[in-house]
Amino acid sequence: MGDLITEAVSGTLYYLDKPAFDRVQACNASAEQRTSLFADMARLNTLYMIANAGSGHIGSSFSSMDVVAWLYLNEMKGEDLYFSSKGHDAPGLYAVLTALDVLPFDKIHKLRKIDGLPGHPDVGVAGMVTNTGSLGMGISKAKGMAFANRMLDKPARIYVMTGDGELQEGQIWESLISAANHGVAEVTVIVDHNKIQSDYSVERTSSLGDLEAKFESFGWHTQSIDGHDIDAMRDALNAARQDEKRPSVIIANTIKGKGVSFMEGVSVDSDVERFQFHSGAPQAEDYTRGAQELISRILDGHKAVGLPEPEFETIERPAAPQGGNPVKLFPSYTAALLDQAKRNEKIVALDADLVLDMGLEPFRDTHPDRFVECGIAEMDMVSQAGGMALKGLLPVVHSFSCFLSTRPNEQIYNNATEHTKIVYVGGLSGALPGGPGHSHQSVREISALGSIPKMAMVEPAHPDEVAPLLDWCLNTHDGPSFLRLVSIPYETAYEADASWTPAAGQGRVARKGDGSAVIIASGLVGTAQAIKAAERLSGDGVDAMVVSLPFLNIVDGDWLAKTIGDAKLVATVDNHYRRYGQGDAVATALAEAGALSNRKFIRLGLDLTPPSGTNDQVLKAVGLDEETIAAAVKAAL
Amino acid sequence: MGDLITEAVSGTLYYLDKPAFDRVQACNASAEQRTSLFADMARLNTLYMIANAGSGHIGSSFSSMDVVAWLYLNEMKGEDLYFSSKGHDAPGLYAVLTALDVLPFDKIHKLRKIDGLPGHPDVGVAGMVTNTGSLGMGISKAKGMAFANRMLDKPARIYVMTGDGELQEGQIWESLISAANHGVAEVTVIVDHNKIQSDYSVERTSSLGDLEAKFESFGWHTQSIDGHDIDAMRDALNAARQDEKRPSVIIANTIKGKGVSFMEGVSVDSDVERFQFHSGAPQAEDYTRGAQELISRILDGHKAVGLPEPEFETIERPAAPQGGNPVKLFPSYTAALLDQAKRNEKIVALDADLVLDMGLEPFRDTHPDRFVECGIAEMDMVSQAGGMALKGLLPVVHSFSCFLSTRPNEQIYNNATEHTKIVYVGGLSGALPGGPGHSHQSVREISALGSIPKMAMVEPAHPDEVAPLLDWCLNTHDGPSFLRLVSIPYETAYEADASWTPAAGQGRVARKGDGSAVIIASGLVGTAQAIKAAERLSGDGVDAMVVSLPFLNIVDGDWLAKTIGDAKLVATVDNHYRRYGQGDAVATALAEAGALSNRKFIRLGLDLTPPSGTNDQVLKAVGLDEETIAAAVKAAL
Repeated sequence: MGDLITEAVSGTLYYLDKPAFDRVQACNASAEQRTSLFADMARLNTLYMIANAGSGHIGSSFSSMDVVAWLYLNEMKGEDLYFSSKGHDAPGLYAVLTALDVLPFDKIHKLRKIDGLPGHPDVGVAGMVTNTGSLGMGISKAKGMAFANRMLDKPARIYVMTGDGELQEGQIWESLISAANHGVAEVTVIVDHNKIQSDYSVERTSSLGDLEAKFESFGWHTQSIDGHDIDAMRDALNAARQDEKRPSVIIANTIKGKGVSFMEGVSVDSDVERFQFHSGAPQAEDYTRGAQELISRILDGHKAVGLPEPEFETIERPAAPQGGNPVKLFPSYTAALLDQAKRNEKIVALDADLVLDMGLEPFRDTHPDRFVECGIAEMDMVSQAGGMALKGLLPVVHSFSCFLSTRPNEQIYNNATEHTKIVYVGGLSGALPGGPGHSHQSVREISALGSIPKMAMVEPAHPDEVAPLLDWCLNTHDGPSFLRLVSIPYETAYEADASWTPAAGQGRVARKGDGSAVIIASGLVGTAQAIKAAERLSGDGVDAMVVSLPFLNIVDGDWLAKTIGDAKLVATVDNHYRRYGQGDAVATALAEAGALSNRKFIRLGLDLTPPSGTNDQVLKAVGLDEETIAAAVKAAL
Repeated sequence: MGDLITEAVSGTLYYLDKPAFDRVQACNASAEQRTSLFADMARLNTLYMIANAGSGHIGSSFSSMDVVAWLYLNEMKGEDLYFSSKGHDAPGLYAVLTALDVLPFDKIHKLRKIDGLPGHPDVGVAGMVTNTGSLGMGISKAKGMAFANRMLDKPARIYVMTGDGELQEGQIWESLISAANHGVAEVTVIVDHNKIQSDYSVERTSSLGDLEAKFESFGWHTQSIDGHDIDAMRDALNAARQDEKRPSVIIANTIKGKGVSFMEGVSVDSDVERFQFHSGAPQAEDYTRGAQELISRILDGHKAVGLPEPEFETIERPAAPQGGNPVKLFPSYTAALLDQAKRNEKIVALDADLVLDMGLEPFRDTHPDRFVECGIAEMDMVSQAGGMALKGLLPVVHSFSCFLSTRPNEQIYNNATEHTKIVYVGGLSGALPGGPGHSHQSVREISALGSIPKMAMVEPAHPDEVAPLLDWCLNTHDGPSFLRLVSIPYETAYEADASWTPAAGQGRVARKGDGSAVIIASGLVGTAQAIKAAERLSGDGVDAMVVSLPFLNIVDGDWLAKTIGDAKLVATVDNHYRRYGQGDAVATALAEAGALSNRKFIRLGLDLTPPSGTNDQVLKAVGLDEETIAAAVKAAL
């Protein structure tokens, strides 16, 4: 689940060009030997792509690589399909598909870049069967495809990779039931059982117990193999194909980070519980050591099959320009939560396998008895919080916003109907970081939760606003709340006021202007962009006011009307879909306050699904860059 | 899941008063004998309540009754808790709790009435531990309570009843994993395994296979008993209590409708596949036969334990006044879907155990190969539809709106990011029927789904608008859509135009008025109420225009501005929460069109969770009755 955004590796990066893969495929070695060598070569390219992008999942790309390579090189025919349900292993899959000409080879230089290869699979990219990155949907999707294949009389096999942590999601088990009942024997699920999930081991996070017995009890043909033993894989896939009545699952016992000794989950004793290579690019030094290790095994492999040494392509990647002074919200959140917990012993924290991303380690270590790690099981987590709240506790529930606002959507509503107080804290909010793609870019939560009675959604525009807003949610607001947090470091010209106390529906003037036009925005990214746009406009003779409004779904229309005076234009900027975001709350509040007479109103925000790309690319693509905002304001005036 | 709303039974209704229960509890018979007799007496009162209310779930209230009676009479102590995760069996539980003075006895006359006993449990009612009615959340809730009990050092046992159809929900299996890992031995789950779900048998809908093996593989202490054998129940509960390491599940093999011979699932051979007594009140004749059968067994029971005959209270219930000419949307939907399917062989229909409620039997029987019954597994259903759409099919996905818009919320979004076309059809939309309560009253779907790119949400105000809107969704609109349907018959003065063709964001003038004020509404209930309010206002000298706008999240601001002319007031009426409903779409569209100058704007809709009650009571409570609408318009003018 975690999707750590680190820095691209600078220095010499290595990869292999397509002809090198062609030679291995064409050589005289056994299928097993060719596959192993091909897989190591694809690992090298995967490592290159992630180093170059600055983020991506090495661990599961490597653990699943032998399976993926075998499937594409030897198993799949005709209309057969493969996809990964978790999709985190996309870089590994891209490395295979670029080597096989399913994807243009040049795309390997554009991982997590716009018009390149998105952080998680998207059907707009050749070879991608379905959009994944949101967990647990793959088997259901495969069943739908199998149904269509039957109906259209186009028989084919469908191979679905799942993670092991992913099996904590309820949809997985939901999907197994009907697959067995409908005898969807054309579906084979391969569990990449690498034993380590985002934060820690599966065992520690939320053990899956006897996995074989579970699948068997759900009526699936169940096999368990060493996922790096290609002979075993071939035999298991044969056996799966021969069962014409039951869907099959192959539990592939793999090693996270397989292929680079010090990245392998099993080998770093001290780090098994804090695996370094789940997501994010490696440090430069680790990159080089890893690449060298792969290169020398690739050279050995060529020797073993009687091929000449391949030529390794290199790219010199300059160091990223440093500079600026970006601020981060999460350190402030960690501190604020600890501070509140010290003062109120009823506060408990719940997490869904994102302890590190959500800044929860200090809380867990300080209050181990008040912390519940739920695993990747957001529905279960939210309903557990509901039970706790009914018993008088004050739960603070954590996940990425994209998941927290949607997967347990009905559960959050159910809790709200009980009139208890629960604070939901969503990380990775908004369109940035752009790299992970739309499964992780959360631009829909105001709409998804905003109509729930008494639900207050708030977003700080500065680290210094985190503590006051958390305090407001916990101690002032009478109802559930959602604290929306941007996860990336971001530069902002917005100055917080240390003595600020939130008042429902009200915000702060971030830039005074001359009152001719007002831009209303929220959050770290939104407010920063609005201020930048206003600065740009001032060069064009427009001196716009910027209001930073931390309340996303509640707007005090009278306060706002007074604040904006007789501005001729009100423009709202949503780091969210344009429909049913903060802009709508502003429009209705002003309309009901009778404050939209004789001025223009425009809403800016996302209209289409955001692409995957660098942060600047994505802001531009979704129209939240300063230039687009400024142009829209100017055009409206 | 189904929640059939039928008519209250007229004629003589029978129930037993509290003292009769007290005498049985105090008599000298064995605990087992007393419990059985008490359970039959509670069945009589349950039958009375449902007959009186006109709806409620007899089948599962009866199948679970012996378990519930045993728990309350003999098992639970101190802070121990019991609740039903499905909550459909609430009438049975109410019958027990009123007999035990947990609930005021008089409440038995107010099932599904306001300030009475809601259709599904609500914590505002004495003895209700958590809000249920939405399936699959109970075990998670219980885990949260157990955590709180441990933290607060208040040890207690928690008993959770689940249905068997309910086990198709993924959250159930999600919740089992961590319960085993945390050794939540204080939780005992009892599965009311009555083998029949809303539409058909569990076996036919989506078989659960080897249920014991499933629970065992999830690490739970698993027992299977005859759920009407009180000795076996006592022993199983003892064994569960003695396991201090594992949570326990007792699979109680029960008979749906147990206690009235012809209502028992096992006895009506021809009706096992279409069980008559899942929800809805019985026919008057069936009521009387059922009550007589219970009465004679209760009399025998009294004799057996040496008690005098109890006095049966009677109430004469007058026949409901007939009249009016309500219209229904679903027959039109059934016909429209069949018509479309005839013309386009790519159309497939998916359902989640609501074939009857969603009017799908004719489709299924006509196109068995194009119909998929998914069981109570909405996430799986929606992702399956996603897979089908990727393969070129045109899926139409069915459930109640309350579930369809929320449980698979992330899955619907994921499908949308693939740019396929899928039509979601939600029944039981809006605040009516009022009886089932907030788990089933769907007043949040515009918000929950409305911001998804290209998602069009539409709602017909008249049966004749169903076919054009379905046609628009399937054949005109480029994107996913949600067809929001009211399920109850409703009287309306709105006249549809048979030749009407939908145009995105535009609607029809339902009442002309003099242009001084405009009420904008949608759907069968909303439009009817708006017209009634306008008629009422005309008595007060206000001649309001009514616009019926079938597009819920898309409004053509220019068209609307032109249509409403220079009205001094625009009032929107949402059969939905006020925030992020159609009213917001109207406000933003008018604001962006510059059409809110010099007129007032008000939004009407729900601000608080709707209560359970009769339809008139609920409309009044949520402010959607004609009187409240008219008063608000008048006050604003």
